[in-house]
Formats: sequence, C-alpha cells, structure tokens
Amino acid sequence: MNEKRLAKRMSHIKPFQAMEIQSRARALELTGYDVIHMEIGEPDFGTPLPVIEAGKRALDEQPMWYTPALGLMPLREAIANFYQTKYGVTIEPERVIVTAGSSAALLLTFAALVNDGDEVLMGDPGYPCNRHFVRSMDGVPVQVPVGAASDFQMSAADISTHWGTRSIAALIASPANPTGTLIADEELRRIHQQVTQRGGSLVVDEIYQGLTYDTAPSTALSILDHTDNVFIVNSFSKYFHMTGWRLGWMVVPKAYVKEMETLAQNLFIAPSTPAQYAAMAVFLPETMATLDARRGELKKRRDFLIPALEAIDFQVPAKPGGAFYVYADTSTVAEDSFHLSSTLLETAHVAMTPGRDFGVNHPERYMRIAYTQPIARLADAVDRVRRSLVTGV
Amino acid sequence: MNEKRLAKRMSHIKPFQAMEIQSRARALELTGYDVIHMEIGEPDFGTPLPVIEAGKRALDEQPMWYTPALGLMPLREAIANFYQTKYGVTIEPERVIVTAGSSAALLLTFAALVNDGDEVLMGDPGYPCNRHFVRSMDGVPVQVPVGAASDFQMSAADISTHWGTRSIAALIASPANPTGTLIADEELRRIHQQVTQRGGSLVVDEIYQGLTYDTAPSTALSILDHTDNVFIVNSFSKYFHMTGWRLGWMVVPKAYVKEMETLAQNLFIAPSTPAQYAAMAVFLPETMATLDARRGELKKRRDFLIPALEAIDFQVPAKPGGAFYVYADTSTVAEDSFHLSSTLLETAHVAMTPGRDFGVNHPERYMRIAYTQPIARLADAVDRVRRSLVTGV
Repeated sequence: MNEKRLAKRMSHIKPFQAMEIQSRARALELTGYDVIHMEIGEPDFGTPLPVIEAGKRALDEQPMWYTPALGLMPLREAIANFYQTKYGVTIEPERVIVTAGSSAALLLTFAALVNDGDEVLMGDPGYPCNRHFVRSMDGVPVQVPVGAASDFQMSAADISTHWGTRSIAALIASPANPTGTLIADEELRRIHQQVTQRGGSLVVDEIYQGLTYDTAPSTALSILDHTDNVFIVNSFSKYFHMTGWRLGWMVVPKAYVKEMETLAQNLFIAPSTPAQYAAMAVFLPETMATLDARRGELKKRRDFLIPALEAIDFQVPAKPGGAFYVYADTSTVAEDSFHLSSTLLETAHVAMTPGRDFGVNHPERYMRIAYTQPIARLADAVDRVRRSLVTGV
Repeated sequence: MNEKRLAKRMSHIKPFQAMEIQSRARALELTGYDVIHMEIGEPDFGTPLPVIEAGKRALDEQPMWYTPALGLMPLREAIANFYQTKYGVTIEPERVIVTAGSSAALLLTFAALVNDGDEVLMGDPGYPCNRHFVRSMDGVPVQVPVGAASDFQMSAADISTHWGTRSIAALIASPANPTGTLIADEELRRIHQQVTQRGGSLVVDEIYQGLTYDTAPSTALSILDHTDNVFIVNSFSKYFHMTGWRLGWMVVPKAYVKEMETLAQNLFIAPSTPAQYAAMAVFLPETMATLDARRGELKKRRDFLIPALEAIDFQVPAKPGGAFYVYADTSTVAEDSFHLSSTLLETAHVAMTPGRDFGVNHPERYMRIAYTQPIARLADAVDRVRRSLVTGV
C-alpha cells in the first residue's frame, strides 16, 4: 500500500457546492421526487437549432481533425466581426483565441501570468473557479470583500487598498457570477487606471456578456482607452447556450498571442473541432433572433422572481442587471444559508446554491438562485420554499 | 504602454515544431504545392462512421448540457467494460475519469501530484507536452537520456540511477511517441517496483494502446500486481480516430477519485457532451471491426516504410512495435535533422518532424516520420526525399 501523495495546491481547491447539490438533487429525482433546479449556471433553453444543425452538417462534411491551437481562423474572424458589428470595436482576428470553454481561457491566462506567490485581486463573493485557477498556478487569490453598497463589485478604491508588493493582476466580472451585477463604464476605467499605474494586468470576465436587462451589452474592449494589459475572457456557454460543447474565447494583447499559442498547443492541442464548426452558426441572423428572444424571457423571469423572493422575506440588496442569478440575502429567514439550502432541497425539493461556494465574505447570509427555469416553475419553487419556511425549517 | 509580464514557467515552454512545420506546409499548399504530411500525430482515416452517426443522433436527441465533471456514467462503465472484455481486467467504473483529451488527463495528474520543484522522471526523446505539463505546475522534468539499445525506453535501472531526493514520479509510455517502441511486461513490473520502493507515483501513457503490430495490445492495469500509485492516461484520439473531438480518459487509484473530481470541476467543469455521446459508439462491434482493419493497414504501412527509409540511408535503430511513427536516424544523410526537415519541406514538399521537438538527447540525429498517409503517398514521399538528397541538400 502506497502513501497517498497530493500537491499542496490541492488543499486550497474545494468542491463546487453547486455540483454537490445537483448530485443530491439527481439522487432525489431517481427516487421519484420532482426537484426544481436553480443551482447550476445553465439555462434550460438548450443549444439553438441552427447551431445543432451546423454541428450535424460539420460531422457529415468536415474531417474531425485537430484544428490550429488557437482555433479555426474563420471562427476567430467571425468573433472579431461580432465585436465590430455589435460593439463597434475593431479587433484583429489574431488577438481572438478560441478555447475549450472559458475554463481553458482562465487557465491559459493565469498560467501565462502567475508565478508562485503572486497575488491576483478578485471580489468576494465571486466565481469559485477563479481562485482555484490562481491556486493551480501556485498563486494567491486575494479575496477582496465586496458588499451590496458597491453592487458586490470591486471598486477602483478597493484596488488601491488591497494591491500589495506581490500583486500582479486584478480580475473583475461584468455581469458577475453569483450576483448578476454590472460594473459602470466610468468605474471600469478607474479600475483599469489603478491596475495600469501599478504595472498590473486586468482580467475581465465577460462570460455573461449579452445577458443584460436594463442596459445595452458592453465590452471592456470598447470602454477602455488601451487594452495592452487586458485579458478578456468570454464563452459560448451562457448567452449562446452551448454549455456542454465546452467552447469559449479570449481576446489578449497582441504581444501575448505567440506565447498563448505555445501554451495552448502544449496544454490543450486545440479546442473541439465539432464545437468550433457549430459555433459559427451562433452569428446567423436567425440564431441571433432566438438568442435575443431568450434574453427577453430571462428578463421576465428576473422581474418575476425578485418581488416573489422579497415576498417570502428573501432580500435582494443589489438588483442584478445581468446574468441569470439573484444573490439573495436569506439571513432574515435562516441563520445559515448552507443549512437552509440543504433543508430546502430535502423538504421542498428546491435546489439552490448557498453562498459558501463563492467565498468567505459572510457566505452564510446569501443564496445564489438561478432563474434557469420557466416562470411557472419559479413560482412553484417560491411557493414550495414559502410553505417549507412556514412549517419551520 | 505596459510592460509585458510572463510567468517564469513560460521560458521553459517551447512551441511544437510539428505544429510550426504544419503551418509552413499549409502555407506552401496555399501557393499550389502538393505537400505530403508526415509531421502530425493524426491518422488520415477520420472518425469512424458509427461514431459520426452517434454524434449526430445525440445532437438530435440529447440536451447538450454539462455532464458530470468526471464524465457520463454510461461512458465510464463502457470503458471499464472494455478493459474487462479486451484485457480481462476488472476496473471499478468510478476509477475511470473522462477528460478533455489525454491533455486534460495529464494536466489533472500533474496538478494533483506536483509541488514547486518536484521532479518527474521521463525518457528523452519523449512527447514534448509531458515536460511542459510538469513545468506548468512548476515541477522539474528530469529528461533521462534513452537510446536505441533500450528501445528508447527508460529502464528500471534508469529509475534507480536518476531518482533524487525531490523526485516524486516517473512517466513512461508504451507504445511511445516519437519512437513507437514498447515496454516489455517484465521491465514494466521492475520499473513499477523501483518507483514503489521510493514512495513515488507511476504515470503510464497508454494513448497509443491498441496500435501494436507484432504483439497483442496490453495495459499496465493487468500487468502490474497493484496500481494504487499508478495513473493510466488514455485517449479516444489515436486508436479510435477521434482527434478533433478532444476526448480521453484516465484510470486513477480509488483514493484519488474525489480529489480528481474536485480538480476537474474547477479546471474544466466537464468534458465535451457531444464527444462523450459519440465516443460510446467506438465500442460497437462494427466500429471495432473498422478499427482493427485500420490497425492492419497501419501495420502494412510500417512494414513498407521501414525498408523504404533504410534504402535511402535513413536508419531505424529500434523497430517500432506500435503507434504510427518511425524515429529514424538521419545522421548518415544530414548533420542536423532540423535543417534537413526544413529543406525537405521546401524542396521536396515532404513534412516530417525533427528530433528537436522531443528533447535534448542528440535530437539533431533524428527525425519523427508519421505513417499517417496511404502507402502510395509514403512511397512518393520517400522518392521525393531520395531525389532531394541526390541533388544535394
């Protein structure tokens, strides 16, 4: 019998509660219960039909060989063209790097930037994988506590306060997970200025780009006056509804393209060939129309869910302007959201993700609730929760 | 203008020559030249039709959502069952982890095992990404020089000689890239014993499993008497001809499954959903028949190519028993295989990969030649090379 060996980084890498809850939810379903899923960041709509058809056509017509490490050039050009037509910003296609989901984009970014002990500033609460990517590279995620007063977003002042001698980058997200909140253009410029002054890099998570409900979608590429220290991460999963295909992209400064290519060749060889051919169909007018209609439906769900939650004493201290999450304060109904989440799953068969997934900044007060279900199901979920709370949790 | 920042690991991570050569070859093709491709580890046959059909059916019938992080359980069970029927070895399906290509399997393995400064022993020449995965985790690849006398394989004696106080693992491959050579069962047992005695882990690359021409295919899982410190890496790319789908798997000790799941959740979320559904069709009898016929064709190519190369004074010092590569000694026709490779590409329009990709152990003497083309094309390639050598390189 050999002793188990684990690298030190493993002690910092924690399971996704959302995935654990989903597993438990699936187990309950197998025993016959109807569980309402609001725990995973995955919309219920499924991949748009033109994308499915493009995937099938590619399987018939294209060899499924490796593509270039940075992706098929026509797809990189299509993404660059999308920035031009949708956001009015001109990007050289060479700066667009197609990746195996935004996961691979984040891994490449931190592999390229982070040395052992280097710090990366990020808001807490935040997407849990971000800190784990930094840990994977033996860096130190600095979890900056952010609250409702700043829309759960790191401010330029936070950068100035928390930047240390070992800090090399800041990571921001707009719209953000788990809160759905946005960063105002002016604040984004100030954040970038703070990071630039300190010789740092700015990583901008735009994975939920396009899913905004009160304002037009935006990109840091058009808001910032220079982006030679900015790494933009994006995805075909959320707005484009291609979760299982595992395809994303990044836009990197031109000076980093060659190194990113070397790294991508070695770590991934290439992104998925069928996914790349399928993804080209997201830019078709009929797909775009479907995507916008879905965005409209998500807005309706948000506008239904927030007052419905408030009516059962869940507070929504920062209104989410995007993504498909409400980060609700449940401290008026339960002391610990982790316990509450477990109870609601077992008694009401409603799955939600407790704050614990997203950091250490009072996670017990919060619950992430994904409106990835039709309104009737959301209403049913809220009703089940209400009844469960009345009978005593 | 901001200063460019690159993590230290980046200075150790080199471009794939094979990919650079392929790029140059494609450029030549665009200007009208007929280039014979023998540079990339990708067979010309394409994905088997039943796999394509299964992929298309899944796109019609299955939602393309995230799967569990370790893969669809029916696929994990099918892989376990394949070990049972093909190799007579019983593996719990839980130990099978489906990954985004063997690239992701190698990344997970080294992320889980390697601390800053930890050494991993591997043969030189060897698959270049292996040392880069170790470097990505700030580990140190110990490139053990191996020659034709040991079939370019690390021996048990090599382990004993090169293991140091910071060594934590050894990586072996059978069949190997770039040499196509195998490790005999007895030697594999001795290697494992040496590693086990030292409290180390053994990573076994079986990516080319099934592609053997003189002996039956095998797995370390059935050869070794215990595998609680063994990580097996495998792929749907090579024997199963699914390169562009980016799907592989690993078999890990049971004690590591939970940590691997946490790491996979965070670094990858999940492997590709369409690829997983498609891959289930590789185990169908009709696919298996196709795969075995292709193996027969590859054997014929090998048996044609080796004497053909020898006739033009390329030496083949260790006969490849598997994979689809010949690692030829070209020192009798040219001083430097890197220069030779470039000249042959430009003058003969034949693309081959120089030894430089595979390490620092006299790489200038060797060329990796992939027999991923029909015999007529191989014959043409050898003829072109012969003429190019006659007219003077």
